[in-house]
Amino acid sequence: MITLDTIRAAHDRIRPHIHHTPVLTNQTLNDRTGASLFFKCENFQKIGAFKARGGLNAVLQVVDTKAGKAVATHSSGNHAQAVAYAARQVGLPAYIVMPRTAPQVKKDAVRGYGAEVIECEPTQAAREAGVQTIIDETGAVLVHPYDDEWVIAGQATAATELITDFGQPPFDLILTPVGGGGLLSGTALATHFLSPTTRVIGCEPEGAADAVLSFQSGQVESAPYIDTIADGLMARLSDRTLGYIRQHVSAILTVPDADIIAAMRLVWERMKIIIEPSCAVTLAVVLRYPDQFAGKKVGVILTGGNVDLGKLPF
Amino acid sequence: MITLDTIRAAHDRIRPHIHHTPVLTNQTLNDRTGASLFFKCENFQKIGAFKARGGLNAVLQVVDTKAGKAVATHSSGNHAQAVAYAARQVGLPAYIVMPRTAPQVKKDAVRGYGAEVIECEPTQAAREAGVQTIIDETGAVLVHPYDDEWVIAGQATAATELITDFGQPPFDLILTPVGGGGLLSGTALATHFLSPTTRVIGCEPEGAADAVLSFQSGQVESAPYIDTIADGLMARLSDRTLGYIRQHVSAILTVPDADIIAAMRLVWERMKIIIEPSCAVTLAVVLRYPDQFAGKKVGVILTGGNVDLGKLPF
Repeated sequence: MITLDTIRAAHDRIRPHIHHTPVLTNQTLNDRTGASLFFKCENFQKIGAFKARGGLNAVLQVVDTKAGKAVATHSSGNHAQAVAYAARQVGLPAYIVMPRTAPQVKKDAVRGYGAEVIECEPTQAAREAGVQTIIDETGAVLVHPYDDEWVIAGQATAATELITDFGQPPFDLILTPVGGGGLLSGTALATHFLSPTTRVIGCEPEGAADAVLSFQSGQVESAPYIDTIADGLMARLSDRTLGYIRQHVSAILTVPDADIIAAMRLVWERMKIIIEPSCAVTLAVVLRYPDQFAGKKVGVILTGGNVDLGKLPF
Repeated sequence: MITLDTIRAAHDRIRPHIHHTPVLTNQTLNDRTGASLFFKCENFQKIGAFKARGGLNAVLQVVDTKAGKAVATHSSGNHAQAVAYAARQVGLPAYIVMPRTAPQVKKDAVRGYGAEVIECEPTQAAREAGVQTIIDETGAVLVHPYDDEWVIAGQATAATELITDFGQPPFDLILTPVGGGGLLSGTALATHFLSPTTRVIGCEPEGAADAVLSFQSGQVESAPYIDTIADGLMARLSDRTLGYIRQHVSAILTVPDADIIAAMRLVWERMKIIIEPSCAVTLAVVLRYPDQFAGKKVGVILTGGNVDLGKLPF
């Protein structure tokens, strides 16, 4: 089980390698929503996303416990860069299995951190088999993108900073996106320990609505369909993340892609910062369900800013 | 003449209405340039650009001295929004003459601040005549975008914050774009008073290269041709701004548009913040003339982030 001490130890472990990211506010967005919004800018984090926190905590733990002489994962997204970056920081080899169809720019970014990219067919089975082969051959330790206590404890440090920097009186609500549930779990745990009166809400695209169903049923469910611009939020929960979320999260709210794109554009235009589609789902929820947020102090974790500028949705 | 007291009084006057903007750094850009770059983020300023500072100082001065019951200007850019915003803050009517060909989104933004937009033919003569008519009819006071001591003193407050927040040892260099020269003049004056060992460099597009010629000749020159994506930097210097620049600026360096676009993209991708083309000319200069900046501590004023997301150059 993750305790406050686990999270604090994670924070101490990763602190030399991460940014303590700023919290921004915006008058126009406050006027528009009637809420007081406080945006924790993990788009300014190392590798451009909060995933650096969890990846670092897991990789540093591998080093501290001498669990292995390399790390491996499969990912086509920010977690791939996070593990590659973390491994470079500590001098471990990293093997990243990526679908051969992943954008060249993402493969290049991972290689830019010195990791080895192993291409595979673009199926979940091929990705998992590819990683297993690497582990068997090299003795690398798997760093799962979310179904991992070290990763979750690392992701919890974003909310820890947000809550600690904010001081009193506490937030009414804290919002994060939910994909596999690592960030939402970590955020809910940190909030439970550090700001117990604050409610945590997970925000999910309608086109990858597994978490809202799992939250209701108590079992890991699949999304009815997968079709969303939020490519970082397509994964299902695990038993582990569902457990933390059922225990410490108040609600999961969903929004359609049109709302996500509109919210993303609003942040770009009004806050002058770059966020990726998966990151915009939180503000989209605030705009879609205004009655739940008006008059409230709301912490929002902006998760990442890695977009392909050649393929913008507007 | 503008003194340190003038600038400090301007800062006190406008402080309740502006953001004290943050200074960001970026490891990738430092590695790439060999310099230590400190970016003063006026793209996060009210109205999305530093122009809010000068506009406010001038408009507040009109109120303090009872110089008139309204303000007027002609602009199709950030100065129009700055004057409109400033006038709304103090409850004065504002009349903004804009070419009828200006983008609807810019006219709407000005109207959104409660100012009256007067459309004119898209020529300099029509703009000036339009403003004169307004002044004659309403008794409004002209707020010139740069040929104005109050405006220059207001723009000087950006460098004042940058220098004061940075502390010791001082910057080796501070860079700003140069169009009409209001920001460059204010920056050079503030730096002269507060950090006299720091050199100030103006950065100009090759496609609007009037300031570099005027700096050499000592007279206000026209650009050989006007053709640049940096639409905020097309104006010529005035005798006033040329005087300040000749006195306190070390050099003016020019860059082609391809460099400006590449620098803009680099900031978007690496810093995850939105800057407009006119704002990217400073980093473009650092990248084009690396020998002048390697190993140096360089303050860079990021001037604005107002871009039409539907018309990006990449």
